[in-house]
Amino acid sequence: MRTATIPDVIVGRLPLYLRALSQMAGEGKEITSSQELGEQLGISSAQIRKDLSQFGEFGKQGTGYNTKYLAEQLRRILKVDRVWEVALVGLGDLGHAVAHYGGFVDRGFRIVVLFDDDPAKIGKDVGGMPIQDAAQMTGEIRRRGIRVAMLAVPAASAQAAADDLVRAGVQAILCYAPTNILVPENVQVRYIDPVVGMQHMTHYLP
Amino acid sequence: MRTATIPDVIVGRLPLYLRALSQMAGEGKEITSSQELGEQLGISSAQIRKDLSQFGEFGKQGTGYNTKYLAEQLRRILKVDRVWEVALVGLGDLGHAVAHYGGFVDRGFRIVVLFDDDPAKIGKDVGGMPIQDAAQMTGEIRRRGIRVAMLAVPAASAQAAADDLVRAGVQAILCYAPTNILVPENVQVRYIDPVVGMQHMTHYLP
Repeated sequence: MRTATIPDVIVGRLPLYLRALSQMAGEGKEITSSQELGEQLGISSAQIRKDLSQFGEFGKQGTGYNTKYLAEQLRRILKVDRVWEVALVGLGDLGHAVAHYGGFVDRGFRIVVLFDDDPAKIGKDVGGMPIQDAAQMTGEIRRRGIRVAMLAVPAASAQAAADDLVRAGVQAILCYAPTNILVPENVQVRYIDPVVGMQHMTHYLP
Repeated sequence: MRTATIPDVIVGRLPLYLRALSQMAGEGKEITSSQELGEQLGISSAQIRKDLSQFGEFGKQGTGYNTKYLAEQLRRILKVDRVWEVALVGLGDLGHAVAHYGGFVDRGFRIVVLFDDDPAKIGKDVGGMPIQDAAQMTGEIRRRGIRVAMLAVPAASAQAAADDLVRAGVQAILCYAPTNILVPENVQVRYIDPVVGMQHMTHYLP
């Protein structure tokens, strides 16, 4: 498979290209250029051309990129030309916001099961789904063959919840808990921590 | 200033080191090593030693790092040895969750003003603060000298809100809206988009 050798840092930029291209296509813009994409994303046009050339010939010299076609190709490469079923673990304030968010399906993800270990929450409905007992999580995720999960539990519970997810067969975890979790090598984790982003910026503030 | 020449990719890892070290220090662990930090963070110990050496001599060969001391130094470098006042714009589900989140202050940030343009929300109390009319935002932020903002508005409103923030003197924006915003060169933006993280992972799923 050709994409197996693409550097991870490039793979990480593809979702940004896809987001910008989908937006352009949605606004009826048929053609764009690496210059235009670059200005929007704050990435150099040379970098964009180089990144995209790793995956094949998407644009012709001088004619630019067809937004819809390139978005389709990126969806295929990122494997979001399908919709992944997602388990959401932890229904605190953030988990509720995530469960209610309407922007996942168009981009390849649908939250289909909710879990929490708080008896006061179990059985309640959020976004049309019942919150299920976390004690049933491993069986339920395995039964449904779910491989992607979002973890919105407190930091102190994150490792135990991640262990359960891994045991259930989950291979990709988006972790909102402000801590690092340890997982086997065949499992991927990406973190969402707003403070990490803000501290990165304050370093540069005069 | 010595830190001015540190590559941005290294600066971006420092908040992760700080988070792990703070956690260790909080658990009463006085000494750690680049090996231990690396295992926890999934970063090689050589990389960690190299990153930290950019900022000075934090550990002695063979004795490891003092968690509390190194955390203090990283706080100073990241300029979170103080607490930054933050404006939060957009009080939808996500904005509410962000406003209620208790984990910012210990890490250098305190949300002090809330803005939304929805008349049904203005005046309501969230986390002990009233939601203020976004029409007053520029004046209020300028008056208070706030330089950091979190943007939790829908994608379609993000650019206009960012323009207002920039006009008010904000220099660092954490953008939760799933879109790219254009800002002047002296303003920093970092993005929080869960789908970008998930699409990055699905690329690798077999």
